[in-house]
Amino acid sequence: MDFAQSPRTQDYLKRIRAFMQQHIAPVEEKHLREIIERKHGFDWTQWKVPAGFEELKAKARAAGLWNLFLPDAEHGAGLSNVEYASLAEEMGKSLLAPEVFNCSAPDTGNMEVLWKYGTPEQKDTWLKPLLAGEIRSAFCMTEPDVASSDATNMQATAIIEGDDIVLNGKKWWSTGIGHPNCKILIFMGLTDPQAGRHAQHSMVLVPLDTKGVAIKRMLPVFGEYDPPSGHGEVWFDSVRVPKSNLLLGPGKGFQIAQGRLGPGRIHHCMRCIGSAERALQLMIERGLSRVAFGKPLINLGGNRERIADLRIAIDQARLLTLYAAWKIDKAGGMAALNEISAIKVVAPNVLQQVVDAAIQMHGAGGLSYDFPLTTLFAQARVLRLADGPDEVHRGMIAKVELAKYAPRVPKQKESAA
Amino acid sequence: MDFAQSPRTQDYLKRIRAFMQQHIAPVEEKHLREIIERKHGFDWTQWKVPAGFEELKAKARAAGLWNLFLPDAEHGAGLSNVEYASLAEEMGKSLLAPEVFNCSAPDTGNMEVLWKYGTPEQKDTWLKPLLAGEIRSAFCMTEPDVASSDATNMQATAIIEGDDIVLNGKKWWSTGIGHPNCKILIFMGLTDPQAGRHAQHSMVLVPLDTKGVAIKRMLPVFGEYDPPSGHGEVWFDSVRVPKSNLLLGPGKGFQIAQGRLGPGRIHHCMRCIGSAERALQLMIERGLSRVAFGKPLINLGGNRERIADLRIAIDQARLLTLYAAWKIDKAGGMAALNEISAIKVVAPNVLQQVVDAAIQMHGAGGLSYDFPLTTLFAQARVLRLADGPDEVHRGMIAKVELAKYAPRVPKQKESAA
Amino acid sequence: MDFAQSPRTQDYLKRIRAFMQQHIAPVEEKHLREIIERKHGFDWTQWKVPAGFEELKAKARAAGLWNLFLPDAEHGAGLSNVEYASLAEEMGKSLLAPEVFNCSAPDTGNMEVLWKYGTPEQKDTWLKPLLAGEIRSAFCMTEPDVASSDATNMQATAIIEGDDIVLNGKKWWSTGIGHPNCKILIFMGLTDPQAGRHAQHSMVLVPLDTKGVAIKRMLPVFGEYDPPSGHGEVWFDSVRVPKSNLLLGPGKGFQIAQGRLGPGRIHHCMRCIGSAERALQLMIERGLSRVAFGKPLINLGGNRERIADLRIAIDQARLLTLYAAWKIDKAGGMAALNEISAIKVVAPNVLQQVVDAAIQMHGAGGLSYDFPLTTLFAQARVLRLADGPDEVHRGMIAKVELAKYAPRVPKQKESAA
Amino acid sequence: MDFAQSPRTQDYLKRIRAFMQQHIAPVEEKHLREIIERKHGFDWTQWKVPAGFEELKAKARAAGLWNLFLPDAEHGAGLSNVEYASLAEEMGKSLLAPEVFNCSAPDTGNMEVLWKYGTPEQKDTWLKPLLAGEIRSAFCMTEPDVASSDATNMQATAIIEGDDIVLNGKKWWSTGIGHPNCKILIFMGLTDPQAGRHAQHSMVLVPLDTKGVAIKRMLPVFGEYDPPSGHGEVWFDSVRVPKSNLLLGPGKGFQIAQGRLGPGRIHHCMRCIGSAERALQLMIERGLSRVAFGKPLINLGGNRERIADLRIAIDQARLLTLYAAWKIDKAGGMAALNEISAIKVVAPNVLQQVVDAAIQMHGAGGLSYDFPLTTLFAQARVLRLADGPDEVHRGMIAKVELAKYAPRVPKQKESAA
Repeated sequence: MDFAQSPRTQDYLKRIRAFMQQHIAPVEEKHLREIIERKHGFDWTQWKVPAGFEELKAKARAAGLWNLFLPDAEHGAGLSNVEYASLAEEMGKSLLAPEVFNCSAPDTGNMEVLWKYGTPEQKDTWLKPLLAGEIRSAFCMTEPDVASSDATNMQATAIIEGDDIVLNGKKWWSTGIGHPNCKILIFMGLTDPQAGRHAQHSMVLVPLDTKGVAIKRMLPVFGEYDPPSGHGEVWFDSVRVPKSNLLLGPGKGFQIAQGRLGPGRIHHCMRCIGSAERALQLMIERGLSRVAFGKPLINLGGNRERIADLRIAIDQARLLTLYAAWKIDKAGGMAALNEISAIKVVAPNVLQQVVDAAIQMHGAGGLSYDFPLTTLFAQARVLRLADGPDEVHRGMIAKVELAKYAPRVPKQKESAA
Repeated sequence: MDFAQSPRTQDYLKRIRAFMQQHIAPVEEKHLREIIERKHGFDWTQWKVPAGFEELKAKARAAGLWNLFLPDAEHGAGLSNVEYASLAEEMGKSLLAPEVFNCSAPDTGNMEVLWKYGTPEQKDTWLKPLLAGEIRSAFCMTEPDVASSDATNMQATAIIEGDDIVLNGKKWWSTGIGHPNCKILIFMGLTDPQAGRHAQHSMVLVPLDTKGVAIKRMLPVFGEYDPPSGHGEVWFDSVRVPKSNLLLGPGKGFQIAQGRLGPGRIHHCMRCIGSAERALQLMIERGLSRVAFGKPLINLGGNRERIADLRIAIDQARLLTLYAAWKIDKAGGMAALNEISAIKVVAPNVLQQVVDAAIQMHGAGGLSYDFPLTTLFAQARVLRLADGPDEVHRGMIAKVELAKYAPRVPKQKESAA
Repeated sequence: MDFAQSPRTQDYLKRIRAFMQQHIAPVEEKHLREIIERKHGFDWTQWKVPAGFEELKAKARAAGLWNLFLPDAEHGAGLSNVEYASLAEEMGKSLLAPEVFNCSAPDTGNMEVLWKYGTPEQKDTWLKPLLAGEIRSAFCMTEPDVASSDATNMQATAIIEGDDIVLNGKKWWSTGIGHPNCKILIFMGLTDPQAGRHAQHSMVLVPLDTKGVAIKRMLPVFGEYDPPSGHGEVWFDSVRVPKSNLLLGPGKGFQIAQGRLGPGRIHHCMRCIGSAERALQLMIERGLSRVAFGKPLINLGGNRERIADLRIAIDQARLLTLYAAWKIDKAGGMAALNEISAIKVVAPNVLQQVVDAAIQMHGAGGLSYDFPLTTLFAQARVLRLADGPDEVHRGMIAKVELAKYAPRVPKQKESAA
Repeated sequence: MDFAQSPRTQDYLKRIRAFMQQHIAPVEEKHLREIIERKHGFDWTQWKVPAGFEELKAKARAAGLWNLFLPDAEHGAGLSNVEYASLAEEMGKSLLAPEVFNCSAPDTGNMEVLWKYGTPEQKDTWLKPLLAGEIRSAFCMTEPDVASSDATNMQATAIIEGDDIVLNGKKWWSTGIGHPNCKILIFMGLTDPQAGRHAQHSMVLVPLDTKGVAIKRMLPVFGEYDPPSGHGEVWFDSVRVPKSNLLLGPGKGFQIAQGRLGPGRIHHCMRCIGSAERALQLMIERGLSRVAFGKPLINLGGNRERIADLRIAIDQARLLTLYAAWKIDKAGGMAALNEISAIKVVAPNVLQQVVDAAIQMHGAGGLSYDFPLTTLFAQARVLRLADGPDEVHRGMIAKVELAKYAPRVPKQKESAA
């Protein structure tokens, strides 16, 4: 057993930290303020990439800090999940960094899907510009009219008609779809209701400018619209694309979704942990710098105990996530089902807990945009729902646990996931 | 011991419910949407009272549902704290109702202060139009540069110079100061640093249009600016008002603040409980109407247990708040110190817990403005800091508890409040 | 609304406190030590009432502090539930007091059953000596071989054969059955499996010396056997008693059980709250008297915050229990179903939480019999299971809550209770 | 990063599991029942090693499963801390196994101390028979009259007089001192009050039969006396031993204690995790085998969610403990201060949480000796106090955390540990 990071990870970490300190930190506040002021908050069609942002990306690419998430030595860095995990944590300490390094969701997941399952033509058309950071992408799965925590509830359809596929339905929470550079989306819909439970749905590549694709509005998360990316509600009205836009084949939607989720959850959780470290740091710095009743806040009441509990919680969440990543590397996502669900519950909840405590230490200022805390809170809160709510993941963990006792385990429909 | 509400309370409750159902419910969503769209979100000088709102107030006044908070039979309803408490809970179920009934913070607290401590002239000039709902008011106590959880940290000054008082300093989180009708504020500042710890500060009436009063910006709470009231940062630069604007006298600031806080905290907490009931209702309705894995969400996993725990928590918070109100009625605020601090910890935390669970049951939709949940969450979160953070109130409760064991109790500076 | 105790309650409280201080406190430790040393711990047939105990009871009776639980002015004090509740809390502060005042479970519940449902002959034979404190009793419902949280699982039978009833089956956790004075038990068993779900079971009076009744062993709770009362496992092998021993009639078991449970749970919960007050007091006294790192323990880390949280929790539990008692008084047990289940969850959990914290403040000593803390812990822990586990009560609360939304509520078998 | 266990660990694990299944499991219940019945519970001088136990130890030794804890290839297995950790978890699943494998506290810690710091003569006299399992030992540090959470409170003295050391004072919670084979104890006492804070105390080897050593009584933990080992209160009255019995030298007590604690805490925590796995297994098996309201308990209410939360908690505790062990191996105990304190908080609390839930699933039976749950609960509860209470460890973690922000950190006496 060896908890040391690989030399490659250590080297990348050092370079990422240096880059973030030199290039991102100095502009982060200006950039975020621009976003926060959201002059075009309610007219997302006017959203713009902040000035200087593409140059920042170019610098990161030139520095070799680019597409590090991709376990492919040619297009990415060829890092294993456990190697990349710590880099994701580091990036998570900045709200800008993941995109600067072309490592932000949902592009990472979409690139992985294209890399794993795309045809040469699909790769050439969409993966190439995504890897180059020239375009961005969205993923359309969740629907407004049903409980999407049960993916089989999905109502949108992807019907094959001759050489085309015709898409209909409503999707929402399509993150990134408001970005000026968003050009492609992956749509998931019902193709064959007669097939087995997990073979009914297909994934389809849909250029954003296809006729019938209508972005109805952007959705706020705790009042934040996250420009210039946004979370969109998108309606598909007889959207017709050629059959060659199918990913992997008809009815392969769930199979792709499974493969997509493992590493994606590692990324999300490690970024959460980076965010949690940042929130803890802000909390401590505030606690050291403000005085009440004659003492620095940090020495009042239960504040030191809270710091200890949060440090423990963060360290445990990190270790569990690294373990899950290592298990994916060694034995694949199916073998790590339990761990992937576990970190999906743990990491966002730990972040929420840390940020809540950090807000409390900041006093009312912590509720405002003078600090990034409410933004980090929103990140935590949305992740307790995105990619499956806590409850579904707990159900999955219990299912895996009880399976050890088969054949004694009674069927429990609700915990299926 | 008798937990039944008085006939007067029962009568008012019936009428408030009827009024809210008939007049407020039908326009609430339209009104809130107008606020949410916040077309002038970032230019608060353009904030407007929504169309039809003054008419709504006039109707409430005509119906005798007006100033019910004021324990004065002439200007208000003459209800005791425990009688009014349940009305505050009911009003708390709507985001508009408190203001429609002229029972919203900080006006209620300011009116009470004027009613209790104002000179006839002060009452005539300011209390009268406030009671009539013609103007609104703000309260300027918290400061940006110090930990305001310790009120003695206050740096702003209120210096008597001849017949005038001269005010200097920065305040923030002055709720309501952005309202188009806000005309008067109560300022608290340091008058005599040589006096005893709680006799150094004064409260002063300051017309908003006094020279030197500058509203620098509005502060968001989890991204919400709460137009048209807002939470302002206000700077006072050699603001000069006549000595007759002093409330009660120089150095009486803390004495007034103490008297103001008891009933105000009852109101806040009961409104929290009303909000919590609303959030629980939304949670259950969502849980009944959505299906996953073949069952309504409400029947999945631990959801019913969560409903039970929330019901218990709400009922306990209500009883404790009613008990605190009764104790204030019977023995005064000082006798109820422990209970007032206790509800101030309990009620907002219960609301936060209920709303968090309700969001979870709603899925991602619960994070957006399609539901009022994030607004209720912000209400809870801000109240865990406003009027003293949880930690200060816990310190006060411990202090009262340990005082029972005097003289064995060692001095503990930090828990002073 | 009036939270003041009635003059009668106040008077009794004063007298109970005085009696406990004068007569019980001086002998409590000696008595408990005798119990703790349990010289006959493993041979329960040798259990004896401690020396002087009957004299103590005689004094209490002479002082008019006797059978206060019974809402009957002739045999008891004629107090309402809400009036008696505070007396139960006070008695709960001593491990001896409830029995000294002839107010201890399960006798109280059994006396209530006899008082409400007994025939004149049953009353004469069993209620009279119970009210006189001359004999003690047990209640046999829970069974070792099934999940007794679902009472309909019950397997023991009470079959009518001519003029007799014949009882068969195994019962356990029959509290008090080891007491030298235990002479009568109430047995619950299945009489008619064809009747409706809640009309199949009967309750039967069984003299302990009836042929076929065999006490197999005493059960420990966290290592404590609670001599001289004990918790017994009792087997019934063709036990035959006359039909006149039936309570209320065949199939009336659940009806009686329901009536028995409401007040009984008030008593249990109020005693828990008394225990919690005692544990909190011990915690604070220890925290004030011991020093570490140069400070009294009470001023270290989060200890004061913990004191505050426990104070809040105890006060909330008390108010909720008093409210439940009041509701039973006003509208009957069925109307207070939700509240009775709520306190049954809250009060033992609060006690467990307080005791756990008190042990922590005591250090390892708190784990030993040098303090009553582990005994109080066992009291809490057993009450989270007795009279229905937390989970069943949560299910009941959810059921009542969701019933407000009928007819939209889907059937959920598991939450039936 | 590599989470795989070393081949040596895997091999030992396999052999330990096989041995436990073949030799320990079949006799465990019989053995424990003998202990539980505690015929001599109150006369510890009559305690006996259960029949057949020494033979079991001989088998383990013959199988090469002996002294595995000792990082010494000659006398032990030469395993690193991280390698041994998983073996300790496995042993923790049985209440007998640790001693069978000669790997039980406090002997392990005492053997380590002798191995690291003992003179050749001390080793020959005491380490040898301990390694052979022929004798057992105790450790006397905690005192009844002071808060021993602050070790500098210690009042017992170890005064050098010529060639002797003279010991005086009261100790308690000396685990193992009741064992018939206990022959030696390590005493810690104050030698030089003028020396630096951590250089005042010495550790001294004291044969149990030295004049002036008096075992006053055995202390119960939640009613359990843990025969035949026990937890003793021991008084030292002018106990005189030769100076050669000093360990390492005068004033070296804290230095030795520090070295002793790191690995010892790893062992304790890993055994806790083993216990937690066992309790979880019992919980699930009960939940699968009992039926209420028409379903197996495991499918009722929030039970599956609870299983999931416990699985997550156990896995996180294990990873954190393994990480702490690895850090000790790589960089020494001082570098792992934070992690050692963290696991000391986490592991016993996780065990307590799992056992509490397991008891709840078992119903009242779980409170009795029909299941090992209350024994496991006592193990958890005592470990939240032994070797430093949770609060002291939280204080240490906060101290380490805040040290990262030096020199800004204000002094806080209370968190010193």
